[in-house]
Amino acid sequence: MTHATNGPATGSSITRIEELPVPKYGDPKKAIEEIVKQLGDDKVSFVKSDLDNHSDAYFSSDHASEEQRPKAVFYPETTEEVSFILKTTHKYRVPVVPVTGRTSLEGNFIPTRQGICVDIARMNKILAVHEKDLDVTVEAGVGWQDLDKYLKDYNLLFGPDPGPGARIGGMVATSCSGPSAARWGTMKENVIGLTVVLADGTIIKTKKRPRKSSAGYNLNGLFIGSEGTLAVVTEATLRLNVRPKVTNVALVSFPKVSDAGKAVAGFVQEGLQLDAMELLDDTMMHYVNVSGKTSLKYEELPTLMLKFGGPSKEIIDYQVKAAQKICQTNNSQKYLFARSEKEEQEIWGARKVALLATIDYGRKNIDKDIQVWATDVAVPISHLYQSLQETKEELQKLGIAGSIVGHVGDGNYHAMILFKKEERAKVAVVVEHMMERALAADGTVTGEHGVGWGKKHYLQEEVSEETLALMRRIKIALDPYNLLNPDKVFDMDPALFEN
Amino acid sequence: MTHATNGPATGSSITRIEELPVPKYGDPKKAIEEIVKQLGDDKVSFVKSDLDNHSDAYFSSDHASEEQRPKAVFYPETTEEVSFILKTTHKYRVPVVPVTGRTSLEGNFIPTRQGICVDIARMNKILAVHEKDLDVTVEAGVGWQDLDKYLKDYNLLFGPDPGPGARIGGMVATSCSGPSAARWGTMKENVIGLTVVLADGTIIKTKKRPRKSSAGYNLNGLFIGSEGTLAVVTEATLRLNVRPKVTNVALVSFPKVSDAGKAVAGFVQEGLQLDAMELLDDTMMHYVNVSGKTSLKYEELPTLMLKFGGPSKEIIDYQVKAAQKICQTNNSQKYLFARSEKEEQEIWGARKVALLATIDYGRKNIDKDIQVWATDVAVPISHLYQSLQETKEELQKLGIAGSIVGHVGDGNYHAMILFKKEERAKVAVVVEHMMERALAADGTVTGEHGVGWGKKHYLQEEVSEETLALMRRIKIALDPYNLLNPDKVFDMDPALFEN
Repeated sequence: MTHATNGPATGSSITRIEELPVPKYGDPKKAIEEIVKQLGDDKVSFVKSDLDNHSDAYFSSDHASEEQRPKAVFYPETTEEVSFILKTTHKYRVPVVPVTGRTSLEGNFIPTRQGICVDIARMNKILAVHEKDLDVTVEAGVGWQDLDKYLKDYNLLFGPDPGPGARIGGMVATSCSGPSAARWGTMKENVIGLTVVLADGTIIKTKKRPRKSSAGYNLNGLFIGSEGTLAVVTEATLRLNVRPKVTNVALVSFPKVSDAGKAVAGFVQEGLQLDAMELLDDTMMHYVNVSGKTSLKYEELPTLMLKFGGPSKEIIDYQVKAAQKICQTNNSQKYLFARSEKEEQEIWGARKVALLATIDYGRKNIDKDIQVWATDVAVPISHLYQSLQETKEELQKLGIAGSIVGHVGDGNYHAMILFKKEERAKVAVVVEHMMERALAADGTVTGEHGVGWGKKHYLQEEVSEETLALMRRIKIALDPYNLLNPDKVFDMDPALFEN
Repeated sequence: MTHATNGPATGSSITRIEELPVPKYGDPKKAIEEIVKQLGDDKVSFVKSDLDNHSDAYFSSDHASEEQRPKAVFYPETTEEVSFILKTTHKYRVPVVPVTGRTSLEGNFIPTRQGICVDIARMNKILAVHEKDLDVTVEAGVGWQDLDKYLKDYNLLFGPDPGPGARIGGMVATSCSGPSAARWGTMKENVIGLTVVLADGTIIKTKKRPRKSSAGYNLNGLFIGSEGTLAVVTEATLRLNVRPKVTNVALVSFPKVSDAGKAVAGFVQEGLQLDAMELLDDTMMHYVNVSGKTSLKYEELPTLMLKFGGPSKEIIDYQVKAAQKICQTNNSQKYLFARSEKEEQEIWGARKVALLATIDYGRKNIDKDIQVWATDVAVPISHLYQSLQETKEELQKLGIAGSIVGHVGDGNYHAMILFKKEERAKVAVVVEHMMERALAADGTVTGEHGVGWGKKHYLQEEVSEETLALMRRIKIALDPYNLLNPDKVFDMDPALFEN
């Protein structure tokens, strides 16, 4: 028996940033050579456009500098290959940024330390659907939209529905959700088990396939939302639901955001269970109309989009009518509900194109080089409407264009702010106020995007120094050399840290 | 800047048991003196009955030996007092077992290392209900039944409904659930934020009050299910739901367990959303009848108990009828539904008395010193009926009495086995087979009781050596001296460990 190697001398339970050394990294060259030798030439890229695309995205709130590029992008095809890569980067102390869909918005995959990028996108097989158990096992590169299409044939659905292009690995990383979260839960509620690779290359399977479990530490809970800083996700077993037999969609416009809020509170009090409730502000509806991406023209007013699902037409009709009645007592202007599946898709379509329509509007009507800052917060439900109204008014006062969309079932809203390059500092202040407003309302600086690179400072304001020091303790326990997605979520480098 | 104190020399991501030293503990005497001096005489007990009650329970599957008693039981009344206790036990390296309701079943609070017990039961205040936000903040000593009563006035409900007597702290610790979990989720899905005290006395607040969050590591997810080995829970903010306006309860008997299973699959496929679905086997129904604890007499057949809840009588009536139709096509014998709230309570009553009725039956009809072994597993839903039927048949073959209850919505079932002291070894084999059966079906050795002392060996079979080594890494990172609830969930002492 040897002595414990990782009990700190002090025996404390947390690690403060002052206790950490400045991380030292090795030269990636040898690691890259060894990995290429093992995996072959067809699983690596050194092409500039690939390196660029694996560092940044147009729609990200924060951007990589020109030096912030990985030295290579690897495309492993099995968990064992990922393990080989991580064993090698561990040996040579090379930083690794894991990605899948690269749709995250807060600079979550900027290669701040260069190193290498591991893109899991080729691991895109659906491995097993267990219809009767209501679960599916997939590789982490599977996109949620592909999964959704695939599951239609089984009459099943997977709850989380984030932005287009997102894939399971990244969805686990950011603990994402989407419009359906209030009904079906976020990633936290929809993962049964994970296969992940740790910083030293160890492969971990967190769970077997029971729908619930109290057996041992909840490692799913730890990895979900850790943004690639604790492990690289390679497979996931996901909870499924039976697809509602009958559905409908309604669209309701209100004179004021607060009226829409009162209607939502009314649905909840009444016990109506909707499959989604989305709020789009008047500006968002204007952008949708201008975009030409939908065939219907909408009222340019605060608008609720409601999705209903259930076992029978009687039950859906009851709910559609009950919701209408509640809307009417809260000054609704128009209550449009679909009379066919095509109409359902058409109405819901306005929600789906929100970010694209916003960007499109900006390019065509403001500046062809328009920038976008898309960010989210979540607050206790009763604070939602005032919080988003204040953000909206601040934008208007400054003459900055931007749309707002809210997942009103769980108090989460998104601001999609359009600006010219030179206006960035002004927008940063609006975002800062949006965060402060959320924190003052006992909320969080991110409901579903994650902290990434851009919100570290706000996370410091959200949780106590000790809570951050506990997160640091966990990070250093699992990744002592600070190799996995460095500089995200919170700082581990005292040289970088500003209080 | 100092050097990192807790990065292991090897830089690995896991800790195997061979790497750990045999833990060394200090004499509790000085720690107890200091704590008594700080907290006062009225917050400590040395009375034998208190020490006994804080070591074991009649209904536990595993029992404490006579030496396994804490040296003192403390009853702190604030988080700061808990922090003072833990700072002191940390200073003197004294083991601490935290408890609240002491209703756990797998030896989860046996004081294997003596030390002290911290009973959070006096921290039983409901601190704030936020009606519009659908959340409540409570101290960890609040019982779920008291909370349920309290929330009725607000027309709200908290989902998890484990055994009578359970309190929030222990419910967090075991990631418990209950009959309503398939509808409202387990503890994992119902905790918004926690206040906990770490092994060194550090107070951590995990989150503010947003209903969802992607901000930083999901510490809720880590602490829930960690069975007091990572932290002592002192406060929790919990998700609430609006209580259904209209409810009903039905009771259906079937000739065979498999028929009941087919009916449940039918409900799921139809998209009926029930508030609870419970299976009671024929033996359980016999014990309920004999117990005299309910006024109705039931068919002594496999029985489903169904709870319905929704916004209107029309919707509930529709669901009750739709469920009846599905039951009929699956050979149901009798379909009884309540016509009043009194009848609802009466019918559901048979479920509520399950464990007590079983013990009562054993005492009156088998042996006045009857023992009970109440344990649970969870399997993918489609494996549930065969799995529990095989356990049932094994009991019958050995002539051992026992009832079975299943939370059929999520593949979780409980066996409550009655035996005379001298039959313990025989029962242990039945339990072992029940575990093996669950694992062979890709399930878990505990769906909601936790691993405690009694199921460590089975957890070793459920997860890989590396997965256990990752749990050990986390444990030693947060509790380097192995003070919090030692010897539970998995072994940290290489001297104790048997492979």
